[in-house]
Amino acid sequence: MFGGIEAGGTKFVCAVGSSPEDLVTQHFPTTTPAETIARAAEFFAGYKELRSIGLASFGPLDLNPASKTFGHIINTPKTAWRNFDFAGEVARTTKLPVTIDTDVNGAALAEARWGAARGLDTFVYITVGTGIGGGGLVNGKVMHGLLHPEMGHLRVPHDRDDDAYAGCCPFHGDCLEGLASGPALHARWGRAPETLPSEHPAWDLQAHYLALGIQNIICTLSPQRVILGGGVMQRAELFIAIRKKVQVLLNGYVTSSALLSGIDAYIVPPALGDRTGVLGALALARDLATA
Amino acid sequence: MFGGIEAGGTKFVCAVGSSPEDLVTQHFPTTTPAETIARAAEFFAGYKELRSIGLASFGPLDLNPASKTFGHIINTPKTAWRNFDFAGEVARTTKLPVTIDTDVNGAALAEARWGAARGLDTFVYITVGTGIGGGGLVNGKVMHGLLHPEMGHLRVPHDRDDDAYAGCCPFHGDCLEGLASGPALHARWGRAPETLPSEHPAWDLQAHYLALGIQNIICTLSPQRVILGGGVMQRAELFIAIRKKVQVLLNGYVTSSALLSGIDAYIVPPALGDRTGVLGALALARDLATA
Repeated sequence: MFGGIEAGGTKFVCAVGSSPEDLVTQHFPTTTPAETIARAAEFFAGYKELRSIGLASFGPLDLNPASKTFGHIINTPKTAWRNFDFAGEVARTTKLPVTIDTDVNGAALAEARWGAARGLDTFVYITVGTGIGGGGLVNGKVMHGLLHPEMGHLRVPHDRDDDAYAGCCPFHGDCLEGLASGPALHARWGRAPETLPSEHPAWDLQAHYLALGIQNIICTLSPQRVILGGGVMQRAELFIAIRKKVQVLLNGYVTSSALLSGIDAYIVPPALGDRTGVLGALALARDLATA
Repeated sequence: MFGGIEAGGTKFVCAVGSSPEDLVTQHFPTTTPAETIARAAEFFAGYKELRSIGLASFGPLDLNPASKTFGHIINTPKTAWRNFDFAGEVARTTKLPVTIDTDVNGAALAEARWGAARGLDTFVYITVGTGIGGGGLVNGKVMHGLLHPEMGHLRVPHDRDDDAYAGCCPFHGDCLEGLASGPALHARWGRAPETLPSEHPAWDLQAHYLALGIQNIICTLSPQRVILGGGVMQRAELFIAIRKKVQVLLNGYVTSSALLSGIDAYIVPPALGDRTGVLGALALARDLATA
């Protein structure tokens, strides 16, 4: 048995189990680090046989094992969590081995193990919700590099004649997250994204920006699949529009059937649904215990 | 001893040797496949002890080992080479084991082995010349995925009020290659890039587009270093301008000293100079023979 925490900016989801078949979860709001971690520790204390805990966390995170601040949340707008030693504090509180990665790298790992990316060695998982994040596996391993991917902060063409909205990213204004996250949709159209009807022009523009981001990710990484999760991606029509626009943008340059006749199986929702995140945390814990 | 071909659209560079210390090279123009490969075979025939040949080639290439057209050049504007079985033909002509990868993946491998990327497991090599291409290593292995990266075809913001030039990419118009390759510079300013003086506004705009592309690659891949080669990158001032603009674009979001105080060692020219490409071909041959 393993423990996992999908740590989001508004919600913590804790789980114990070893796979999608034997999952027990509990969730509660993200408040102060001390209070939130105490609630998680209380949940885990009910399970005596846990071998390790995996954290799939919001970030940015310091994931450099050689760094003094390894496992810390760093540059987050949530000030109580900024420069907080998340992995260290969970380890001290639970007295269990703890591993940490980004929420999206965790989700990618879960989809590789049990979901839409089984058998693939290079793919991305992108979430579109309160923010936009991306992670994935390349050459069979989770993406790290210098720090970890920050795919939400891609710069894409933004025609201010067509779309006067300036973007909401506090760092970059009109980066992908600034133009196409849930809060960007809300601010541009003056209402919550889930209240915008399918025929509203919001969705064509949304598909346009996401397709631009995906085209850039395809050109950079050549993923074998692109998985799109998160609250904003709950509409099937959005997938249809994005697939078409990615094909138009690539314009036949990348000659792979996956991007032509196979596009419906190339840009897909997560197979694990809303359990992808917490299963990612569990997959991280499993990998730590069995490494 | 190993053989290598750096196969470019205008020039073939052939080499035998095993490292930068014992390299013998010969180059000639790229004409028809039959004629060009015959000249290469003639060069290699002078060396009896070759174990394998590596091709670091222009593309796009089919690099999927399961594909019927593995080793073919596919969608190139050079019609004589389109759908040509490059790896197969070199193997048949030389009767040696042959391996193939993109020119930029080869260059990345050479820089990892002998140059500016020693000790790194995740970095990119970008060339800016007749076209723009990018390759690299992620998690210690050359990037492949679905096909291979096509970093020249990233979409970046293009303000037509500031820069009315429409871009020269036949597939995408104003993608990065369409805006910032050597031919784009030539067409925009009406003269060859190498004749544009350092104080010409061309270079500030050039640095701007390349910085946008690099920022996107940093956000997607989180490379530990970015190596910039190719004809257009022969100016030291261009590196200085790109480094500054990448910092301005990232705006402190990715908190790594490599991108702040360490930027001069982060965005760098290839350490192997103009031998990077052919040494990449040699590195590919070496890996094939010693796999």
